Amino acid sequence: MDDRPRVEVCFTPRSYELYDEDVDIVVCIDVLRATSAMCTAFEYGVEKIIPVATLEEAFEYKKKGYIVAAERKGEIVEGFKLGNSPLVYLDGSYKGATIVMTTTNGTKTIHTARKAQTVVIGSFLNLDALSEWLIEQKRNVLLLGSGWKDTFCLEDTICAGAFVENLLNSGQFKSEFDSSIAAKYLFLSARDNYFGYLKASSHRKRLKKLKLNEDIKFCLTPNQTSVIPILRKGVLEKL
Amino acid sequence: MDDRPRVEVCFTPRSYELYDEDVDIVVCIDVLRATSAMCTAFEYGVEKIIPVATLEEAFEYKKKGYIVAAERKGEIVEGFKLGNSPLVYLDGSYKGATIVMTTTNGTKTIHTARKAQTVVIGSFLNLDALSEWLIEQKRNVLLLGSGWKDTFCLEDTICAGAFVENLLNSGQFKSEFDSSIAAKYLFLSARDNYFGYLKASSHRKRLKKLKLNEDIKFCLTPNQTSVIPILRKGVLEKL
Repeated sequence: MDDRPRVEVCFTPRSYELYDEDVDIVVCIDVLRATSAMCTAFEYGVEKIIPVATLEEAFEYKKKGYIVAAERKGEIVEGFKLGNSPLVYLDGSYKGATIVMTTTNGTKTIHTARKAQTVVIGSFLNLDALSEWLIEQKRNVLLLGSGWKDTFCLEDTICAGAFVENLLNSGQFKSEFDSSIAAKYLFLSARDNYFGYLKASSHRKRLKKLKLNEDIKFCLTPNQTSVIPILRKGVLEKL
Repeated sequence: MDDRPRVEVCFTPRSYELYDEDVDIVVCIDVLRATSAMCTAFEYGVEKIIPVATLEEAFEYKKKGYIVAAERKGEIVEGFKLGNSPLVYLDGSYKGATIVMTTTNGTKTIHTARKAQTVVIGSFLNLDALSEWLIEQKRNVLLLGSGWKDTFCLEDTICAGAFVENLLNSGQFKSEFDSSIAAKYLFLSARDNYFGYLKASSHRKRLKKLKLNEDIKFCLTPNQTSVIPILRKGVLEKL
């Protein structure tokens, strides 16, 4: 009887209910770019992030004077200051700030997982730090990709596969779902050149059209931070 | 403007509605073992296969005197003669027969796709023959995996990826969804050793417990037949 905790992958929020049995910790992943931006924001001093699912909520917060980041289809929504580029945080201008954030896919993923015991934010940027923490917890982990409008996306799956590889390599976890094995296989064949591997991916093409290659390269560069954003009463904070 | 037809992959029937836009031909795939059994049955002389979704329907047909193949969770359902092993057809004992078939996942896939313009049956067994035919049609193709109880499964995805690879290699197709690219990548890393690659897969483990390794090897051996089963008014026939 193998009673090690499980590490599993669910490709999109739409399939969450098929994979959430006995899950203790959900890692929300939206590599391009929501969860990468969140990790970067905390690394550069942002205090709190309030993820909201709809633009209506975002407008409400804006009226109240909050700094609001709102992205749809890769672009900053008209009327808002920030989108979901991680690069805006690098100069420290949002140090100490609370930021409200809504994005096409990423904030929906957090919303889907909100009732799990523990919800944390993952990306390539905090890959090793978050992996180590997950290994220490010795609890069942579900890596939840955001996909693109409910369909499977490659970059979130590869990132999830990187976490699976780290956790399985510790010898302290097992995987049971084929989605977890596939994510690991995809990561293994991508890891020498994420950027080239994702050349054909639909979302990279979408962002390239918007001249966001710099953002993409940044989001695909592992281990730029050791922050672990965690959801507490609907608000993301540093663990 | 690239106006070539598309070849896409949908991992499970549950996601079908996200992928079926502008699809002309759906290829239903359930490698272990429903669609492999169907291809084998036609190769060895079976005349018609009536796929049914429920055991109730299967019992009705049995009462009427039909030969019925009924499988659930890898085993023959009590009261029926056949399950979904392809091997029973090899000696030609069902030549000329009409067979009613219901399986855990595969017949549900056909049921999901039934309203598409054209529905055909794919497996490793008819890989090249069906690929050639699909290329000649010059229409949008969706490869629909069966998965395991709605969750992603590796063997159907790899088989779908083999079709994607063949169609893209013809130069006459394009893919737009990340699921199609992932399936192709998984096929490319699996193709030198399907059996070893799938060692970790959940369904292979399930069937191995049932001592079905011979069945698995058979289902993973490409190009054993050139039959293309096609759905016409709810009944499968040879094209």
